[in-house]
Order: sequence, then structure tokens, then C-alpha cells
Amino acid sequence: MKIAILGTGVVGETLGTKLVELGHEVRMGSRTANHEKAVAWTRKAGARASQGTFADAAAFGELLFNCTAGTASLEALKLAGAEHLKGKVLVDVANPLDFSKGFPPTLSICNTDSLGEQLQRAFPDVKVVKSLNTVAADVMVNPGLLPAPTDIFVAGNDAGAKKQVTQVLTEGFGWKRVVDLGDITTSRGTESYLFLWLRLYQALGTPHFNVQLVRA
Amino acid sequence: MKIAILGTGVVGETLGTKLVELGHEVRMGSRTANHEKAVAWTRKAGARASQGTFADAAAFGELLFNCTAGTASLEALKLAGAEHLKGKVLVDVANPLDFSKGFPPTLSICNTDSLGEQLQRAFPDVKVVKSLNTVAADVMVNPGLLPAPTDIFVAGNDAGAKKQVTQVLTEGFGWKRVVDLGDITTSRGTESYLFLWLRLYQALGTPHFNVQLVRA
Repeated sequence: MKIAILGTGVVGETLGTKLVELGHEVRMGSRTANHEKAVAWTRKAGARASQGTFADAAAFGELLFNCTAGTASLEALKLAGAEHLKGKVLVDVANPLDFSKGFPPTLSICNTDSLGEQLQRAFPDVKVVKSLNTVAADVMVNPGLLPAPTDIFVAGNDAGAKKQVTQVLTEGFGWKRVVDLGDITTSRGTESYLFLWLRLYQALGTPHFNVQLVRA
Repeated sequence: MKIAILGTGVVGETLGTKLVELGHEVRMGSRTANHEKAVAWTRKAGARASQGTFADAAAFGELLFNCTAGTASLEALKLAGAEHLKGKVLVDVANPLDFSKGFPPTLSICNTDSLGEQLQRAFPDVKVVKSLNTVAADVMVNPGLLPAPTDIFVAGNDAGAKKQVTQVLTEGFGWKRVVDLGDITTSRGTESYLFLWLRLYQALGTPHFNVQLVRA
């Protein structure tokens, strides 16, 4: 499949590399074409990897991953262009972390709204699926890094889109437990979980952790 | 030990009953003495159970549990009286849930502050330990209700107070895994986790669940 990765950070690189390994054609998009990090990534990732602007990547991809900084995601998608996004599934991996006051960050959107909802409102023709934003990049593409099965969440308004993303998570990345939280408003749950994730990251001293749900 | 339970809701009743069963003397406090629910609870809970105002309970208890509604906790502690709280350990079990716009609730405090911090600031001579606010009341006092060990958190500025609360959690309630998140600001993590807890409650269809941390 043709996949767009929006963003050149660690999350974008890690997802892009894994998706190329799985046999997909992946185009990484950034604010400008020939972004230094995107070019470096295509050299490492091989023949099925390409790069360009957000609009280049969005036009190319049948499935899109938003891996931009959460506070810049809305602008990045505007640059990608509604005409290139229309009707497509966008996996929103970003968290609206605001590091302007240092670590741990606050959230620029929370409580009565979420980034996932904001993107869905701004682009009503896009099928936004919030997922993977509750774990570190290494864990996203390799849940077996952890010694026991853990849970990953999907949230979104379109059942078909969640099914498609779940298939990538299970068959592609190896997730065994995918929990459908409900519509896109449930992004508030996984985005606000970052407050706990960040404190656990400090307390445990590693980003390589996740939660396993245990129910009666 | 003499223990005060502030609040007459399900959490207060459940903790109070368990603490009486463990052999403690427990006084339940509410806005007025002889509150209908507090009186009913003392009849059920037996000879070691008593009730009174917030101030009666706070004066009685060597260890205190804040089980009031989070949006009313600050006022409840003011009614309890700083002179009755001074130097004592207060386990803050409350979440600042705002149900004014229906279910799921929003939080009346979040992002850059938390109820735990607010109480600690208002009563600097109290040793506030945030704990148990991430699970349903039944699970608080009976973690074995779940089929696998799960994690419970403590947050607070005083190491001795956290040690005392951890002892109640492990030896009293049977928790096997207690994670010290750090100082009272880490209450932001566990209180904001409620956004995810509430969505999981809806998705799973039961309040009887918790998370087990899995780390590499």
C-alpha cells in the first residue's frame, strides 16, 4: 500500500521504517521538500522510501499517519491540503504536548477537547483514527519488546477506518490486544493519559513500558 | 488505629467498612452530624464505627481519607479545620470530576494543577498522599477481585507518609504492586488518567478493571 508519514521526528522515522520493512511504499512529508532528516531517512530506509512536502506525501498516500508535533498538526494538515486528504484514513499518533514551560509538558488541548477531535472537525472528509499515542515509538512498531502482552487503543467515528488501522496494528506491527474506545471524542482519554505516561516514564526510568488491562 | 473517613459516598463507605474489618476504629465525617447515610453506615459497620461532622472525624482520626466529591473537597477540609488536620496524613482518594455537563464528566482542575496539589497548598501542614483514585471502590479494598496483579499509585511530598499509606495498601487491602510516582504534582497524572478510565469503563462495560504496568 502507498502510505504517507507526515513528520520527520522519531515517531515518523520509526513508523516509516517499519512500514517499508513490511513492504509498503512510504513517502515522508515535511514543511519543505528535501528536508534534511527526510532525505537521510530515505537513504537508510531504501528503495520503497521517498520524501517531499506535506502535500506531496498526502497526495501519494492511501493511508496517512500524522506524526507531527501535536501543537503543529493542524497547520501541517492544512499544508497537506484538504483535497489530498479527502476520504482517506488518517492515523493520528500525535499528542498536543506543550514543552514551553519545560518537562514534564502540559497539554495545549485537553479536558473538553482533544487533538483528534480538532483534526476531525477541521477535516470532516478525513477518517481520523487516534491510535498509538500512548506508547513510545519503539513500542508502537514492536509491542513484543515488552515481556507480556499490553493494550493499544483506537478511537474514531468510522468503523471501517478503525478496522483497517486495527489490521495494520495486528498483522503489521504485532499488537495482540486492540481496544476500540469509541468515537473520536475518546481521544481525550488517550491524550490525557500522557500526564500519567510522562510521570511513569520518570518513575520507571524507561520509555519502554505500557499497560495491560486486567478486568474482572 | 483511629481513622477518619471524610465523605459518605460509595468510596467512603467501602473504605470505612474495610478499615473497620481490619480492626481500626473509624469515624465517618460529613457536613452535618447524624447524616442519614453516615448513621446507616455505622449501624452496618458495627461497634468500631462512629460518625460526626467533618471536624469531629478529623479531630478523631490519626490517619484521614478524603472521600468527598473532588469539587467539594477543599470546602470539606476547611470545615474539618486546619487545627484538626495539622501534621496528619491525608489520603486523597478524590477526583475533581465535574458532572455539570453530563457523562462522561470533565475535570474541574487539570493540566497545570491537580486536586492533590490544591489540597496540599491549602493545608501545608498536612501530609497529602494521593492514592486509590485510579480504581473503583470495590477494587480499592479488594485488588484480588481482578484475576491478575495490577498497579496502584502513590504521590506525595512526604516519604514517611507515603510509606505509611503503602503499608495500609499492601498489608491492609492486599495490593501487591504500589508505584511511587513522586511528589504531589504527580497527582496530575493519576487524576487526568480518569479521562481514560471513564472511556474504558464505557468500552469494557464494567468498573472492575485496572492496569498492570509492563516494562521492558
